Amino acid sequence: MKAVVWKRESLSVEQVLEPVPAEGEVLIKVLKAGICNTDLELIQGYMDFEGILGHEFTGLVVQSANEAWMGKRVVSEINIPCRKCKTCLTIDPKHCPSRKVLGIHQKDGVFAEYVTLPLVNLHVVPSTVSDKEAVFVEPLAAALQILEQVGIDERQEVLVLGDGKLGLLAALVLRTRSPHVFCAGHHPRKLALLQRRGIETFLEVPKIADKFDVVVEATGNPQGIKEALSRVKPMGKIMAKSTFHEASDLNLSSLVVDEIQLVGSRCGPFEKALELLQKEDLELEEMVDADYPLERAPEAFDKARDPEVLKVLLTP
Amino acid sequence: MKAVVWKRESLSVEQVLEPVPAEGEVLIKVLKAGICNTDLELIQGYMDFEGILGHEFTGLVVQSANEAWMGKRVVSEINIPCRKCKTCLTIDPKHCPSRKVLGIHQKDGVFAEYVTLPLVNLHVVPSTVSDKEAVFVEPLAAALQILEQVGIDERQEVLVLGDGKLGLLAALVLRTRSPHVFCAGHHPRKLALLQRRGIETFLEVPKIADKFDVVVEATGNPQGIKEALSRVKPMGKIMAKSTFHEASDLNLSSLVVDEIQLVGSRCGPFEKALELLQKEDLELEEMVDADYPLERAPEAFDKARDPEVLKVLLTP
Repeated sequence: MKAVVWKRESLSVEQVLEPVPAEGEVLIKVLKAGICNTDLELIQGYMDFEGILGHEFTGLVVQSANEAWMGKRVVSEINIPCRKCKTCLTIDPKHCPSRKVLGIHQKDGVFAEYVTLPLVNLHVVPSTVSDKEAVFVEPLAAALQILEQVGIDERQEVLVLGDGKLGLLAALVLRTRSPHVFCAGHHPRKLALLQRRGIETFLEVPKIADKFDVVVEATGNPQGIKEALSRVKPMGKIMAKSTFHEASDLNLSSLVVDEIQLVGSRCGPFEKALELLQKEDLELEEMVDADYPLERAPEAFDKARDPEVLKVLLTP
Repeated sequence: MKAVVWKRESLSVEQVLEPVPAEGEVLIKVLKAGICNTDLELIQGYMDFEGILGHEFTGLVVQSANEAWMGKRVVSEINIPCRKCKTCLTIDPKHCPSRKVLGIHQKDGVFAEYVTLPLVNLHVVPSTVSDKEAVFVEPLAAALQILEQVGIDERQEVLVLGDGKLGLLAALVLRTRSPHVFCAGHHPRKLALLQRRGIETFLEVPKIADKFDVVVEATGNPQGIKEALSRVKPMGKIMAKSTFHEASDLNLSSLVVDEIQLVGSRCGPFEKALELLQKEDLELEEMVDADYPLERAPEAFDKARDPEVLKVLLTP
């Protein structure tokens, strides 16, 4: 089958062997996949990953020991934990220290014609959700994780820093809980997507005098956390979403004096993301800027790197 | 009256005018005061403070418009908020942006024969609590603030990083909730105080293989937060207590990936600190290493700077 392989610092579309499902796994034919910022970081050396890239997708189950799943259109959680260790049993399987992560760590990803995944990771996509929308389930779940970690109600003022894909999704998700959601970014075209949905946006953050109850840091920039610290009220919360290579020169005294909570936030609840997509039309397809055939993956990656571009899809 | 004045980068014992209580304030004769690490930081330029130092103390009310308070032995909360602004009314007066702070910011402190303070800041010291113990109410309340911010129960494993005064108090306070409290530091004599109370201690943190549900960062060192990040379980909490001048070179990706909560923690509940001192004998007097007359304050500050020394008191 065709697959997008990252190996020895080179990205190429190759013919590779079709994967064979192990015990408890199914074979999925990939319908559509999305390029995430993490993919762009992986090809800069993040996680030392080598193999088939990609973790955002929707596909059809084409081989399964459990007949009931045959032909189902599915999305999949990306963490593949051991489900036996102390962390799996007492904390949360998604934090399993020996977990594999789809297209990120020790597990081939979805930028391919087929992928194998544990049945237990799958969620069926309702018929009202399009293939393109379904590709957003993974990042939408990551945005929803903020609501799992912090109580947001209609009195709270929330600032999202960053107008990348995750920043926009976070703003849309938070808007379902509070009318006082604001987003600050650097790209008028991206912010316009939020404005059309009634979310106030800022091109230059320093112009905002106010401080906020909750600040979501989704800049993808090590300096973002400093900005967040300067924008949060005493006893407020910063939800940290960005990961990066570089360290940041940070003085946390203001966090102590102002009793700020800085909360790391990662993967989220797929079921709730699917429910939200059924219940509300978030018009996520508007965030798709391009859809390339798998063969043209290198070109698609170049496109995705353009700071003005939102989601780029790959179709096998 | 005599007072310990920090002015133009010089510490001296001077004769100054006795302060006059303003509306709502009382005059207090200081019985005993304690030197805190914050005092040592103030004379290195922290907060740009100039004036009479000191914020840990106990004293007698000697002048009060409210007769009922005359002669009472008291301790005092150190934040003096406006009690009118939005932060005071909707968040917490201790975070008032225009607050004065006793001996730290725009308000003369307690290293003097007398001090004036708002009546509303005072708490009466029960007769079973000694003067020396009462000096610990402010830092003990700061340690108790951890319990206000994070639920600790008997199943949780807690690591306190740092064997300074605040680290020891934090370990003692946390020990009242969980038998699994550990403290890591660099001073055998200080750690011995905890060992005698049944708390396991470590001289070299790298020897601990385990990770903890909650890590209290009380090292007073900008690098402490890195150590804390490496010692906390996924989805665990770091309670940050240290403030300092220098920034630290910090990569927060592990905080995001492991969904750690980093919680800034400052001043705490005085009433609960007084209750704890009545209910349990924490043997805090053992932490007093020296008690100097006010005149010998410069010598007392030198003593307090010695890393082997715990609490140094001043008696006017």
